[in-house]
Amino acid sequence: MNISETRKQMVDTANEIAFKRMTTADPKLETVMAAKEVVPGMGSRILLHSGPAEKYDKLPGTTRGALIGAMIYEEWASSEEEADRRLREGYTKIEPCFDHDVVGAMAGVLSPSMPVFVIGDEQGGKTIRAFTTINEGLGKVLRFGFLGPEVYNRLKWIEKVFGPAMNLTIEKTGPIRLKPIIAESIRRGDEVHNRNKASTSAFYVLITPKLLKTSMEKEIIYEVMEFMAGNVHFFLNLSMGAAKVITLSGQGIKNSSIVTTMFTNGCEFGITLSGTGNRLYKAPARMVDAKYFKGFSERDACPHIGDSMIIETAGYGAFALAASPAIIEFIGGTVEYAIEITNKMRKICYGSNPDFLIPILNYSGTPTGIDVLKVCETGIVPMMDAGVAHKEAGKGQIGAGIASAPLACFEEGLRELISRFD
Amino acid sequence: MNISETRKQMVDTANEIAFKRMTTADPKLETVMAAKEVVPGMGSRILLHSGPAEKYDKLPGTTRGALIGAMIYEEWASSEEEADRRLREGYTKIEPCFDHDVVGAMAGVLSPSMPVFVIGDEQGGKTIRAFTTINEGLGKVLRFGFLGPEVYNRLKWIEKVFGPAMNLTIEKTGPIRLKPIIAESIRRGDEVHNRNKASTSAFYVLITPKLLKTSMEKEIIYEVMEFMAGNVHFFLNLSMGAAKVITLSGQGIKNSSIVTTMFTNGCEFGITLSGTGNRLYKAPARMVDAKYFKGFSERDACPHIGDSMIIETAGYGAFALAASPAIIEFIGGTVEYAIEITNKMRKICYGSNPDFLIPILNYSGTPTGIDVLKVCETGIVPMMDAGVAHKEAGKGQIGAGIASAPLACFEEGLRELISRFD
Repeated sequence: MNISETRKQMVDTANEIAFKRMTTADPKLETVMAAKEVVPGMGSRILLHSGPAEKYDKLPGTTRGALIGAMIYEEWASSEEEADRRLREGYTKIEPCFDHDVVGAMAGVLSPSMPVFVIGDEQGGKTIRAFTTINEGLGKVLRFGFLGPEVYNRLKWIEKVFGPAMNLTIEKTGPIRLKPIIAESIRRGDEVHNRNKASTSAFYVLITPKLLKTSMEKEIIYEVMEFMAGNVHFFLNLSMGAAKVITLSGQGIKNSSIVTTMFTNGCEFGITLSGTGNRLYKAPARMVDAKYFKGFSERDACPHIGDSMIIETAGYGAFALAASPAIIEFIGGTVEYAIEITNKMRKICYGSNPDFLIPILNYSGTPTGIDVLKVCETGIVPMMDAGVAHKEAGKGQIGAGIASAPLACFEEGLRELISRFD
Repeated sequence: MNISETRKQMVDTANEIAFKRMTTADPKLETVMAAKEVVPGMGSRILLHSGPAEKYDKLPGTTRGALIGAMIYEEWASSEEEADRRLREGYTKIEPCFDHDVVGAMAGVLSPSMPVFVIGDEQGGKTIRAFTTINEGLGKVLRFGFLGPEVYNRLKWIEKVFGPAMNLTIEKTGPIRLKPIIAESIRRGDEVHNRNKASTSAFYVLITPKLLKTSMEKEIIYEVMEFMAGNVHFFLNLSMGAAKVITLSGQGIKNSSIVTTMFTNGCEFGITLSGTGNRLYKAPARMVDAKYFKGFSERDACPHIGDSMIIETAGYGAFALAASPAIIEFIGGTVEYAIEITNKMRKICYGSNPDFLIPILNYSGTPTGIDVLKVCETGIVPMMDAGVAHKEAGKGQIGAGIASAPLACFEEGLRELISRFD
């Protein structure tokens, strides 16, 4: 694909705008509400999942499990068998989170009664708003396709207790700016995708005093605090929601070759480009290069799945891996490898993030704004931090590691972008 | 100073024991009580200060200021003038924290009514216990020699509200192990001396849910949480107390050349050695190599002061500087310089810490157990993180940086250790 210098300059000018919008976006946690009350199109019988749209029976076991769980949680079915049958029969709509500006981790299933974090920003009179579920913790959780009373009871508690508690607390704190938390957490060794210890602590320290200023009883406040304190991945979903607002801010700039979405449903990996709107370019999802938990191997694994690589699309996660040497224990590899990944991503990005600074690289910014032109020129594909789910429902997380994106969808995207040049 | 190989082996065997005791020590926060109720020898009219013993009028302005403040806080004087006169007249005993197993930051002034963290460990049937004040925060605080109602009111609140609240909470949590918090915070970019953001957050996350399990009212719990959440140095004193227990554990091993105390009163820097008990070796305190706050320079500075270098003596702080690139902003320098300091300290230490691991050095342990023999052989002196106080009372902190210890006291210590060999 040969592109003239004039065209390249045209693209570069568009990318400058997209990059600037992404890096000046200021996502704020605004409130917590039930999805049906706030997410567009969630008022009816509908379930969302991560990644591009796919038929129920083509989705991986992990996601089918999570959808079954959501049916039972919503009391749309009283058994797993009934839920599975009804899902096959079209009892509910099944749509991708993407169509609703929702980002979902792993299976990413969202149902109307679940509360969501509402994350927004005002930009030149325009409101940008994204939504994400509340992280359930580790262990037996819906996003990894786990089923059973433990899962539903926790989801009900999140709906009835935790969500309203967060809502009341944010009324006291006012909207909470998320970029300063992410920036500080990168200084504290999180890449804020697979490692969220520092970010969760920082968010917890910020929000918990104000819990005491609400009318809630001490016992409830205790439960809410224990839940956050006990979940080292609590901030992950907030990180995803912030990244979604950041990337939505860079969307829709004519001629821009910046990537604005990466996501996968476990079958197909998809991307969007700023310059081609919501047009999706897809390629088969790849396996994660993972460190498996004891007793598991790649044979047990679901391919790369989830919307969480919105984080890398926004310029951190694996792109900030050099800042997070402590994650190496969890995902395998060496510190040098982590630095190498950050440096490699720099070759395919428009610029350096002005806010997300990496101390050990003498405070250089994280590579931000994946440029599909550079991806295709260098053949270097984006790397993403990733959890690995068992390929069957009900078996949970079996590892974590690094995934690389399939090149084909970037090539397809670039071809179309070029075809649209004036 | 020539030492035969046989002698060196004897010393090494002793150092092995001291190192093992230091690195297996398990300091726990046991309770919070008024100094007069728990610190040996604090029942009468007495004030403690950091560093070696010194006459009141020879102590730096910072410390004299803090002592004056403590007189007013204890209601032993009603004005600064009266307090100063009474201190000169010997109205109270003035002793070093060191004599009471207390560690004090900067001026390090402790008076009988102030609550202290009690940090202890049981080792082979023996109880080791150290004490430290509760960190007041930044700004107008007694440890930097600030005076006035704001300072006394905060100290009274700490005495009447915060201390008892901590005590009630620790009753619910049980003794809190401090080494896991320090180890995790080193992973999160603290060296846990000049940077305590991660450690403070981690401690806060650990302890705050249990605040709700006490009988305290919500408004009080709110105040307690706000105080901790708003003080990024809150954990510093706990870090010092843990380090004191660690170093006390290595004390008193015949023939051991391991350094077990480093401290300074702003005039003289002192050390003790494991093999020579509480014998003090002193040399004039040096200036800190500091990054000064705007409007200040070395001319305004008090020399290196405080007991907080107990942290380096225990094997972290500046010795873990490579783990804390984010501190460079605060103290100046480059990331390479931080790594260089950790590597340099390795040359004068007995071994690598098995618990305090530095991710960016591929999880090697922090250099631990300063060996006075190696110090004198190489001429490399210990480096320490340090705050810088104004030399006059009431002017507070004016910078932060790195201090190096004076070689002379190490040479004197080694000479005496050798003279005691059988």
